[in-house]
Amino acid sequence: MSDLLLKNVRPFGEAPTDVLVRDGVIAEIGQNLSAPMNITTEDGGNAILWPGLIDSHTHLDKTTWGMDWHENNRDAVLRSRIDFERDNRLAIGIDPHRQSMRHAIGLAAHGASHIRSHVDIDPVHELRLVEGVQETRQKLRGIIDIQLVAFPQSGVMVMPGTIELLDEALSNGCEVLGGIDPCGIDRDPKGQLDALFALADRHGCDVDIHLHEPGDLGAFTMELIFERVRAHGMNGKFAISHAFALGINDHLRVGSLIDQIAELDIAILTTGAPSATVPSVKRLVAAGVRVGAGCDGIRDTWGPWGQPDMIHRATVIGMKNGFRSDDDLRLALEIVSQGGADVMRLEGYGAAIGCKADFTLLDGQTVAHSVVNRAARPLVVKGGKVVARHGTCIVEAP
Amino acid sequence: MSDLLLKNVRPFGEAPTDVLVRDGVIAEIGQNLSAPMNITTEDGGNAILWPGLIDSHTHLDKTTWGMDWHENNRDAVLRSRIDFERDNRLAIGIDPHRQSMRHAIGLAAHGASHIRSHVDIDPVHELRLVEGVQETRQKLRGIIDIQLVAFPQSGVMVMPGTIELLDEALSNGCEVLGGIDPCGIDRDPKGQLDALFALADRHGCDVDIHLHEPGDLGAFTMELIFERVRAHGMNGKFAISHAFALGINDHLRVGSLIDQIAELDIAILTTGAPSATVPSVKRLVAAGVRVGAGCDGIRDTWGPWGQPDMIHRATVIGMKNGFRSDDDLRLALEIVSQGGADVMRLEGYGAAIGCKADFTLLDGQTVAHSVVNRAARPLVVKGGKVVARHGTCIVEAP
Repeated sequence: MSDLLLKNVRPFGEAPTDVLVRDGVIAEIGQNLSAPMNITTEDGGNAILWPGLIDSHTHLDKTTWGMDWHENNRDAVLRSRIDFERDNRLAIGIDPHRQSMRHAIGLAAHGASHIRSHVDIDPVHELRLVEGVQETRQKLRGIIDIQLVAFPQSGVMVMPGTIELLDEALSNGCEVLGGIDPCGIDRDPKGQLDALFALADRHGCDVDIHLHEPGDLGAFTMELIFERVRAHGMNGKFAISHAFALGINDHLRVGSLIDQIAELDIAILTTGAPSATVPSVKRLVAAGVRVGAGCDGIRDTWGPWGQPDMIHRATVIGMKNGFRSDDDLRLALEIVSQGGADVMRLEGYGAAIGCKADFTLLDGQTVAHSVVNRAARPLVVKGGKVVARHGTCIVEAP
Repeated sequence: MSDLLLKNVRPFGEAPTDVLVRDGVIAEIGQNLSAPMNITTEDGGNAILWPGLIDSHTHLDKTTWGMDWHENNRDAVLRSRIDFERDNRLAIGIDPHRQSMRHAIGLAAHGASHIRSHVDIDPVHELRLVEGVQETRQKLRGIIDIQLVAFPQSGVMVMPGTIELLDEALSNGCEVLGGIDPCGIDRDPKGQLDALFALADRHGCDVDIHLHEPGDLGAFTMELIFERVRAHGMNGKFAISHAFALGINDHLRVGSLIDQIAELDIAILTTGAPSATVPSVKRLVAAGVRVGAGCDGIRDTWGPWGQPDMIHRATVIGMKNGFRSDDDLRLALEIVSQGGADVMRLEGYGAAIGCKADFTLLDGQTVAHSVVNRAARPLVVKGGKVVARHGTCIVEAP
């Protein structure tokens, strides 16, 4: 862990000050700090200092980033996208290690300190995609932290052998158990959810399930989840990604779902999907729910959108949520930083004395300005070490 | 008008070729064209050549672009936004000439050749904001074409004196008559619409009305508009901006509205507003409706979002419309180019022999790639003259 004296930065947009890092931890914050012997000094140029950005819902194993353009005029049904990707990803050249390196390095270059990545597990690829991303995690140690979700993208009950592979993955480096649309994809909500909860019990791990199911279908699946979180005592250990059902136009019903989400301390991950019904970030936060956000897949076989940049994602979420005020923009930024840390339950996260020195500088007159500014991050620091400058990471992407 | 030989470009993403411009018009397209004497030659670097981008719904007089960050934690009601802006815009420093220069130069730098700008007219500012933007139009002649809409932002019937000011504006350089939410803002739909149609009759001008009114209210106003377009024989001369009512979740009713829009050849302008119900671009296009798009206000007292960049707008519209395929991305690009030309009924628009030499190069392996690529436009040509390179216009913003 490194030492660093960072001069002239504005923590959280407040008055300019200096920040001293010792052994990778923020040791002092104050004006006119002088550098102890042999400590690297950096000039922060009066930029805003913000805790490291967090992509708490992405897919490092899927992107075509940096590859030739992948033409896509296939049909747009969820199940066919899943099957096409599984059966063609290697032939297309989506090497899980190379591509996850590109994706993760991009995120680090844009100020992220932590990633929660789902990684596909299915009977065709078994654990090979996970292994590719694990190699990336190893190589990027000290640059960005990567948490892995064992993700049954192709389904659980409809893909015999998957549950055993998930079990194996959780014994071999995946920290979190994933799941997907127990009705829509798996056609057997009781079957998938019972299997996932049994597996989570055995490993004592968190669960983070993709729930694209809209409207009443998704609300039904949420109720099945609530029943099991309660029965298994998994309060605080369950997360629902997307949660499109919370976007239904029924204020009272959504309120009742959110009440239970808050009571069971279930976390919600959003991407602000512009064409979907999405949960209201403000309503969730007001109810005390932990809310994180992610880039989801970027430029993959599913679709062309996205950037490996959590400030870009904050703008997508902000626009979708009808945010306009400076306070709103700050909330969007908090969702892609502290919000993600709350979901991942990170220890020592923040930009206060005693916190780990994982932070990014933001270019902007104010916090709100920095969100819409589209400027490169001047400096990104991980564990007290400078890992990126002006949008370029110290590790070159393969 | 200028001459130019542009080597090695891909018109509409097709095979590489050369383009010869004589007197501001595309004279030849073919491989290995050689330069007549004294003609400037440019290397297109194998970029895609696309007709000039068109922002057919923006507000050049409103932006704070290039100014200090404008903090905004005011309440978010439409009427209060309007009143705040009118009463504070000059004190804030939003000089209509300087700011419209910055906005329009930004659009040109990003490949736009034409703008339709609404400009506020009200009893407080009378025609002074229009005059500021007219000065910009004059200064940017040869760089970008600007069409002006006399726009009663504060309302017509609720702001006595406005109709006379609109009349004066149409006699003094504004080509199009604007309007706004006849119910929601003006509280008198019959009053406003009758007044607007009478004025349009007198000047023989097109009308382009802001219609934020959602759901049944907006559908009602549309019906009032249809009745009057029919009665006044204004087929092909009316445009509805935003048209949020077309986003209601009633397939048959929306279909009936669109049938009449198509029959009356009413144009629709969209911004793809991420937090609103918006018209389906594909459904409108399939019905034969002319559809253009615009950046709307960018970073103004209303809100912080937006860029003076029609490729950025194409991505906002594409994401909101659930576009994913390469064909979809091409459609998004067509909406911000040919679509805007159709709405503004531009003559000589296109990238074929005989068309005006207003075009931009796009950086991308394919057309779809160029939409999501976020790269600066390598070269922008207006009337055969290079007006921007790599995101920088030859005219410096004040």
